[in-house]
Amino acid sequence: MVAAGEPTHLSDDMQSIGRAAVAAADELRHAATELKNEALLAAARELRARRVDVLGANADDLRAARTAGLTPALLDRLALDAARVESMARGLEEIAALPDPIGTVLSRWVRPNGLAFERVRVPLGVIAIIYESRPNVTADAGGLALKSGNAAILRGGSESERSSRAIHACLAGGLAAAGLPAGAIQLLPTQDRAAVGYLLANMTEFVDVVVPRGGKSLIERVRHDARVPVIGHLEGNCHVFVDRDADLEMAKRIVLNSKMRRTGVCGAAETLLVDSTAVSTHLGPLVKMLLDAGCEVRGDPATRAVDPRVRTAIDKDWSTEYLDAIIAVRVVDGVYEAAAHIARYGSAHTESIVTRNSATAETFLREVDSAIVLHNASTQFADGGEFGMGAEIGISTDKFHARGPVGVEQLTSYKYVVRGAGQTRP
Amino acid sequence: MVAAGEPTHLSDDMQSIGRAAVAAADELRHAATELKNEALLAAARELRARRVDVLGANADDLRAARTAGLTPALLDRLALDAARVESMARGLEEIAALPDPIGTVLSRWVRPNGLAFERVRVPLGVIAIIYESRPNVTADAGGLALKSGNAAILRGGSESERSSRAIHACLAGGLAAAGLPAGAIQLLPTQDRAAVGYLLANMTEFVDVVVPRGGKSLIERVRHDARVPVIGHLEGNCHVFVDRDADLEMAKRIVLNSKMRRTGVCGAAETLLVDSTAVSTHLGPLVKMLLDAGCEVRGDPATRAVDPRVRTAIDKDWSTEYLDAIIAVRVVDGVYEAAAHIARYGSAHTESIVTRNSATAETFLREVDSAIVLHNASTQFADGGEFGMGAEIGISTDKFHARGPVGVEQLTSYKYVVRGAGQTRP
Repeated sequence: MVAAGEPTHLSDDMQSIGRAAVAAADELRHAATELKNEALLAAARELRARRVDVLGANADDLRAARTAGLTPALLDRLALDAARVESMARGLEEIAALPDPIGTVLSRWVRPNGLAFERVRVPLGVIAIIYESRPNVTADAGGLALKSGNAAILRGGSESERSSRAIHACLAGGLAAAGLPAGAIQLLPTQDRAAVGYLLANMTEFVDVVVPRGGKSLIERVRHDARVPVIGHLEGNCHVFVDRDADLEMAKRIVLNSKMRRTGVCGAAETLLVDSTAVSTHLGPLVKMLLDAGCEVRGDPATRAVDPRVRTAIDKDWSTEYLDAIIAVRVVDGVYEAAAHIARYGSAHTESIVTRNSATAETFLREVDSAIVLHNASTQFADGGEFGMGAEIGISTDKFHARGPVGVEQLTSYKYVVRGAGQTRP
Repeated sequence: MVAAGEPTHLSDDMQSIGRAAVAAADELRHAATELKNEALLAAARELRARRVDVLGANADDLRAARTAGLTPALLDRLALDAARVESMARGLEEIAALPDPIGTVLSRWVRPNGLAFERVRVPLGVIAIIYESRPNVTADAGGLALKSGNAAILRGGSESERSSRAIHACLAGGLAAAGLPAGAIQLLPTQDRAAVGYLLANMTEFVDVVVPRGGKSLIERVRHDARVPVIGHLEGNCHVFVDRDADLEMAKRIVLNSKMRRTGVCGAAETLLVDSTAVSTHLGPLVKMLLDAGCEVRGDPATRAVDPRVRTAIDKDWSTEYLDAIIAVRVVDGVYEAAAHIARYGSAHTESIVTRNSATAETFLREVDSAIVLHNASTQFADGGEFGMGAEIGISTDKFHARGPVGVEQLTSYKYVVRGAGQTRP
């Protein structure tokens, strides 16, 4: 554990955490699926058994957070109740039920000289996960790393430290029950703020990848300071484009769901684009529906013309991830202009087109270079569970290594295994 | 093009190179396979047609390099002749003949709610490739980037600048012949040494990934300074382990080929490990064979005991990539100690076991966490061509994104295309 204190203490402590993680990763690399699953299931049992401890720790965190004047939104993210603890336990059980990615043969082929090649999935090694207030990330991230055969170094937010510690104790109990090393899931205390900087810059020898999970400033800080690879999801400035050939009722359902189902998730739509030839038929009903649902609408001149309640959109609105009941609305000339708007202002996360015209749909799906592009479906499907991938650690907007939902498969690498009969190279 | 001069000029020039690359990448993303192949084939024709120009530029580079006192090994890397130009042209034709990775559907599935998912291969975007003296990298790297739908920013070594410029002119001719933008393959001049630093630190907006190709100091510099993802091959400190159950004749063939076929490639073996129970049967003949083939042997005490010509290995020898006719030899107690030696001193590149015992072989293939692990085959098969992947840009010792040979598929990402019928998320 890291003690607050001299930089040399920090360095010594972090080095021993790094060494413990690497040693655990060496063991996890070959750990039997049953052993990893046993640890996950035992951790779920511990979470249920220690629910009172976890909720007590969380109550302490909440009291301190209220005193510190945290916003209601932050308090909501921090708060646990019996249902949220149960959902964490069930999450671990779902991870246990996922197929083990490690050892899977991704492809195999034989060369004319008789050499037999296999590309086999292996873990990445040591994953550092840096997150903010949601204490449930401790369970999700620890569980995903374990299932994918990686050692995890977790660093949560200071406001959720007591909760994360109580949850981590359950994970540690699960590891012990399965006879797996404690170094497999380590939690850094938060009192030493220099620890994150040290982790990002001075632990290249131990840490294979850093996953920041949180707001834009956290991700930007990690990207800027990290000397190890980063899987980061930046913001989700997601778009719905309603084409001239959209069925109006379907467009209304999809726009409403994309924006209003949950406004605080990264897959929530933030901008609605409407084809200029659909202004008279589609724009008015869509805008009225959003306003009536309690959504603030900020529009370009064409949009303002359809309802007096529409506010004026400024340039910044096109690039804003509101994470709130606010939407920017703009009229564009067809699918190519929609794609150009998305390329200019979007964050390459998730975009949807609503149309009955399959040629227009295919143009959109091809032209828009985002992690997830949808036809006639809500942007809120941007979720590992909805993809059938099970739990995820976030949605990557990177193109490097992992793109889209980051589940157990995305936390792996591969190696080539080659079997011969004495071949030498001419 | 970057002019030598004020930092502001550098910044302006680099920004316009970045913008041209991004614009070209937008076009290449959807470029038809035929168009990309046409550009590659036309570039190959240009290389043959302008062979005299290319060789003349190379003669100028060589003259300057001799004056500057470059070593014979560096002069050899720099030197082109008719055969090497022909081999570059053929390399481009081979890249044209590879299947186009872009647009390939990697997997598809349908969810119970009817949403149809596809994972589709897409380019990474803009790839910066920084290399040293070998001018042929200009053709290989430009060709691989183009085939995989990426724009390339190339920065070669100053000693090969004239040669690289002449080769780049052929690539540019190929692009023009196919009507593809010149921004698809740009070559940075080398006179402004600050350009590489700027590229690594200030072009995150334009550059998706940097590929350093060269010696250890180049790779370490790029890793240290880069603010964008890096695909780097570090050194290849490759091992052959001769097990107690190895067929001696096969072991001799494989050890000789792994070490001596070409000593300067990253897949060349640098350390031979021999099982302690095979000292009396295998160690002597292997060491004698290496010495007789002109290879210097640096051994541990057990190895020195078998032949007076063996020199003393010091600790540094176990971690040295000689790239020369020198090998370190050590006796180990079985496959687990061999794997432990490789984990401690190796570079996770390529390792081979020679044995007739398939259980021992499987232990080695599983325990050794290197990009490529082989059974009864030479380490010199570490090569994209030998893998059947076609040309490669290098061998990655990273676990992140690409591991092992980096060919056209490794220069891609993917996106999720989701087709629905009006689904919203409950």
